Amino acid sequence: MDQSASNSFLLPIVDAVPISTKHVKVTVVGIGNVGMACAQTILTQELAEEIALVDVEEKKLKGEMLDLQHAGAFVPRTKITADTDYAISAGSDICIVTAGARQREGESRLSLLERNVSIYKSIIPRLVEHSPNTILLIVSNPVDILSYLAWKISGLPPNRVIGSGTNLDSSRFRFLLAERLNVHVQNVSADIIGEHGDSSVPMWSSVTVGGIPLNNFLDKNINGFEMESLRGIHTAVVNGAHEVISLKGYTSWAIGYSTANLTRTLLKNQQRIHPVSVYAKGLHGIEEDVFLSLPVQLGRSGVQGMVNAPLAEEEKNQLKSSAQALWQAQQGLSF
Amino acid sequence: MDQSASNSFLLPIVDAVPISTKHVKVTVVGIGNVGMACAQTILTQELAEEIALVDVEEKKLKGEMLDLQHAGAFVPRTKITADTDYAISAGSDICIVTAGARQREGESRLSLLERNVSIYKSIIPRLVEHSPNTILLIVSNPVDILSYLAWKISGLPPNRVIGSGTNLDSSRFRFLLAERLNVHVQNVSADIIGEHGDSSVPMWSSVTVGGIPLNNFLDKNINGFEMESLRGIHTAVVNGAHEVISLKGYTSWAIGYSTANLTRTLLKNQQRIHPVSVYAKGLHGIEEDVFLSLPVQLGRSGVQGMVNAPLAEEEKNQLKSSAQALWQAQQGLSF
Amino acid sequence: MDQSASNSFLLPIVDAVPISTKHVKVTVVGIGNVGMACAQTILTQELAEEIALVDVEEKKLKGEMLDLQHAGAFVPRTKITADTDYAISAGSDICIVTAGARQREGESRLSLLERNVSIYKSIIPRLVEHSPNTILLIVSNPVDILSYLAWKISGLPPNRVIGSGTNLDSSRFRFLLAERLNVHVQNVSADIIGEHGDSSVPMWSSVTVGGIPLNNFLDKNINGFEMESLRGIHTAVVNGAHEVISLKGYTSWAIGYSTANLTRTLLKNQQRIHPVSVYAKGLHGIEEDVFLSLPVQLGRSGVQGMVNAPLAEEEKNQLKSSAQALWQAQQGLSF
Amino acid sequence: MDQSASNSFLLPIVDAVPISTKHVKVTVVGIGNVGMACAQTILTQELAEEIALVDVEEKKLKGEMLDLQHAGAFVPRTKITADTDYAISAGSDICIVTAGARQREGESRLSLLERNVSIYKSIIPRLVEHSPNTILLIVSNPVDILSYLAWKISGLPPNRVIGSGTNLDSSRFRFLLAERLNVHVQNVSADIIGEHGDSSVPMWSSVTVGGIPLNNFLDKNINGFEMESLRGIHTAVVNGAHEVISLKGYTSWAIGYSTANLTRTLLKNQQRIHPVSVYAKGLHGIEEDVFLSLPVQLGRSGVQGMVNAPLAEEEKNQLKSSAQALWQAQQGLSF
Repeated sequence: MDQSASNSFLLPIVDAVPISTKHVKVTVVGIGNVGMACAQTILTQELAEEIALVDVEEKKLKGEMLDLQHAGAFVPRTKITADTDYAISAGSDICIVTAGARQREGESRLSLLERNVSIYKSIIPRLVEHSPNTILLIVSNPVDILSYLAWKISGLPPNRVIGSGTNLDSSRFRFLLAERLNVHVQNVSADIIGEHGDSSVPMWSSVTVGGIPLNNFLDKNINGFEMESLRGIHTAVVNGAHEVISLKGYTSWAIGYSTANLTRTLLKNQQRIHPVSVYAKGLHGIEEDVFLSLPVQLGRSGVQGMVNAPLAEEEKNQLKSSAQALWQAQQGLSF
Repeated sequence: MDQSASNSFLLPIVDAVPISTKHVKVTVVGIGNVGMACAQTILTQELAEEIALVDVEEKKLKGEMLDLQHAGAFVPRTKITADTDYAISAGSDICIVTAGARQREGESRLSLLERNVSIYKSIIPRLVEHSPNTILLIVSNPVDILSYLAWKISGLPPNRVIGSGTNLDSSRFRFLLAERLNVHVQNVSADIIGEHGDSSVPMWSSVTVGGIPLNNFLDKNINGFEMESLRGIHTAVVNGAHEVISLKGYTSWAIGYSTANLTRTLLKNQQRIHPVSVYAKGLHGIEEDVFLSLPVQLGRSGVQGMVNAPLAEEEKNQLKSSAQALWQAQQGLSF
Repeated sequence: MDQSASNSFLLPIVDAVPISTKHVKVTVVGIGNVGMACAQTILTQELAEEIALVDVEEKKLKGEMLDLQHAGAFVPRTKITADTDYAISAGSDICIVTAGARQREGESRLSLLERNVSIYKSIIPRLVEHSPNTILLIVSNPVDILSYLAWKISGLPPNRVIGSGTNLDSSRFRFLLAERLNVHVQNVSADIIGEHGDSSVPMWSSVTVGGIPLNNFLDKNINGFEMESLRGIHTAVVNGAHEVISLKGYTSWAIGYSTANLTRTLLKNQQRIHPVSVYAKGLHGIEEDVFLSLPVQLGRSGVQGMVNAPLAEEEKNQLKSSAQALWQAQQGLSF
Repeated sequence: MDQSASNSFLLPIVDAVPISTKHVKVTVVGIGNVGMACAQTILTQELAEEIALVDVEEKKLKGEMLDLQHAGAFVPRTKITADTDYAISAGSDICIVTAGARQREGESRLSLLERNVSIYKSIIPRLVEHSPNTILLIVSNPVDILSYLAWKISGLPPNRVIGSGTNLDSSRFRFLLAERLNVHVQNVSADIIGEHGDSSVPMWSSVTVGGIPLNNFLDKNINGFEMESLRGIHTAVVNGAHEVISLKGYTSWAIGYSTANLTRTLLKNQQRIHPVSVYAKGLHGIEEDVFLSLPVQLGRSGVQGMVNAPLAEEEKNQLKSSAQALWQAQQGLSF
């Protein structure tokens, strides 16, 4: 029989047996400015074969989906899907959660958290139900506590729950250091760890410029490398997000790039080291059941281990008090 | 003398003579949703060494600049600058103009155009003053008339003024054809030409699927390739932008990708063929001084020529009446 | 317990449970000029997480492995392994076979084929034993018969055995057409099908230039588009490989790029259409159990179907006689 | 007049004025294994719009050119040209020189150098004649002395003559350190400076693992970080090239990647820091007119400055004696 007599566009070859494909899929929950910046950056970088969007706002959801789909000729590799039903997220390799309540005027931090508990209790189980092998990448704030929540609610092993944490703070840190030292950002390596926010901890001991440890320059009194002045840069990092929010109303692009950066490392199994929020019990003397950012190696299994970085006494103490503060904040929560 | 005794981070080598660099710079005028989608996609694709943002809203401008700068560690190649002063755009290879008035309720098309004339009279001369060798890439709507305006006001040769035109319509066309025919968008080649908007002209005669001309499938009655049903897809393309606007309030991502796609072809001198809005006098029997979309080859010099595509009589007539309509609309304008 | 007291570089986080990773692996069998060009191009394009080399020449094998490994800082994503033992190929997504006997002086075609039967009988079962889910991508010549052999010996379903076939001939075809028509190769789409070699069949009916079917230009007598002169280009394609061999002694780069191009489409599930050697029984009236090149859609499952392209009567006849010739050549073989 | 009546494929738009394009061109002189690995890697990475090959072997030259050109459909951006006449190299941004004499049996180092002087006296002036604004990237060995020669003969300012130097040694260093420490090569930063070859100097003081200075791990006795054992890795690096040569007869891939890596930094103006061979007089107490590898920042102007890295006394002394040895070797040369 000549199959060419058939009138379908593709003719099967005889006896073909499809094999299960390694279809790479990312779901983004929450399509506000942050969620869409994440989705669009991941799309542009062609990191996945499918991006699924989930939100409760049906109209906006369809609009964003169509807007991305219309770019089909420009980013042809990626299928865009969207639904209010979590079934659309089935089989995701990574689920990025950007949804969360925003603080109401006069609302206490605890009340805000309580509301987020209830939101996460609705989101997380459905994600895990449809993608039992997924990695959860938590972006909503307060990211450390919500990562802890996501871990608790999901029942996933702790290597598969990651908060975007201080990955973005560290990029801001490098940018500002580079500007101050008048070198290219490419040539600065510098990390911030600890709680994402005001109490974050700059790891001065591992800053390098042009591959050379910062200390070597300090010792030699190279221009611009004055420790006191450099310390001010950490303050600027902490204020960075606030400044952008006060100017444009929200942050979006930088957190989108940070999330895409983590997604790339995870999906492509790159074994790179990032400062992200992870289950920290047993590390650096932390005894509480908390998530906070530490330099960890990431790959397709999620967190593959923490870099056994020696910390200064002061840094250790800062980490410990962050851990305690986070632990306290979590005490009020019921779930 | 041992320079290493110096205390600057970089030591010059003796007798170095810098050469003028081929610094690739793109300016985006207008930082609304469309302008920022353009800027961010170009940044993610690392198409330029510098992206300059220009707008009149000083606060938002700084906020968007910082938000992009904070991603420095993730997209380290590109310098981000921003100012309300056009001096920041100096030396641009491409200036993308997304600024323009929005239609007020009850406002006539002519009144809207008059306001855009005045906006463009303020923008275009300053861009050309600071970047006399730039290519102008016009994105604001109505794109054909504003491209004509930009050309007239700028005094640039017509190969260096390009309207994004139907490049995006063509992507939507491919996406919808692929969906209907149940093939991958990668395997569909299809262009829309003419006026960007309701009177655009689908070039059915050059549609190919899997590299095979559409006509061959029509002749053979392959499933799904029924001309009547396919014609409906052009209507869907025309309605596509309206649908997204009705759902999410505006379009942004797809036009951003379309603009980045054109920017890539121009900056990398790719000699690819795109349907974009160009000076059309003398082409396909068009006698008016108008811009409308035709399949042209683009490179570092801008428009390098129009593909001498044979058009059906009907297509030619549609083009000609578009040209006349555009010409009429331009008559009311004074500049 | 504070794990930081430990003295390993990476500290595990508590209760981590690794998930099985989607490790993408490609094996190249045969490390001559062709095999190494394939391996190196795939490495440069970062298409896989692991590339395994297999050959019988132990010393050269180690040398090539080290030479690629030494580039570790420049292409950090990919692990390079090599061994004479096929166990090194375990779990490959694609196995590329470039090994094969070379014609001895005065040797008959049949005798050469007999030797290749014996080589393939040694290679193929071991590949399939260690990677039962692999796709076999056959590059050695005569590629159509060796693809058939590989299919027979492997016992794999026919969608998972692919010969590189006329994918490269088609690239040469596009390059030469572009040169003749003085357009950019990017703007020419043209395929060659049938037997890889002298009897290959150019698909003139689906050639497009600038997206426009060739016929439209022929009808309009556009300069350079004269059919008689264009036919000479197919002859030049057929002679292309011979010419390179007579000049540099072998071909390597172009076949390496062609193979990497196919590998990308397969691994990234791109659903692109390529002319490659596939099991052709039942297609276009072919009744023999043979492999020859047809335009097929490729993805992670291998061959997903043949484009139901209408062929001219002459083209069909050419295909049929190729099929018969291949079938005859295979009759002499015992395996 | 309706231009569409014309019969050329592309129709010019009226009054078009081409602008001078920023055409990026790289010339490779010498098409042996090293030269072709450089050219092919640069082609695959699409770093240039044109690659020109120059050599004296006319037949092989044409064969290699055709073999690369035949890949036109797979790497469509780059034009490949080749000629024995240096006019083909005109307007190059970078000229990569891989040509050079090979040591004959029993030949003295000085005699070899004399022959290379004569080869370079033939190559370099012609390159500079046709590309007065080029950067010279010297790959032939002994790379430090030949870089010095190229600088002297060319009359170019020293920032525009660069030897590939220890850029590759440093990649080998990182690969071997990563293997020893059982971490990903991505997570190791380590440079080798000084003379390319046996007397090269590992910069232990700036080695970082996971962004953390090596010293911190040494102090903490982390497993695998024992200085004595690590020192052996430098020896392995020095022996690396010899080992590959003894196994496969020559090195090619790794030096090709190293050269492409430098080419990317230079052409894309990335401001990255690389250990390459530069004019070293006045740096680190070196008083001789010599080239040797130091960590320098590279961009479109070539060398932009040396990182003012503090060296240990021992490292300084090693550098100084290297400089003196190189200086002595150059004394015998007449040009």
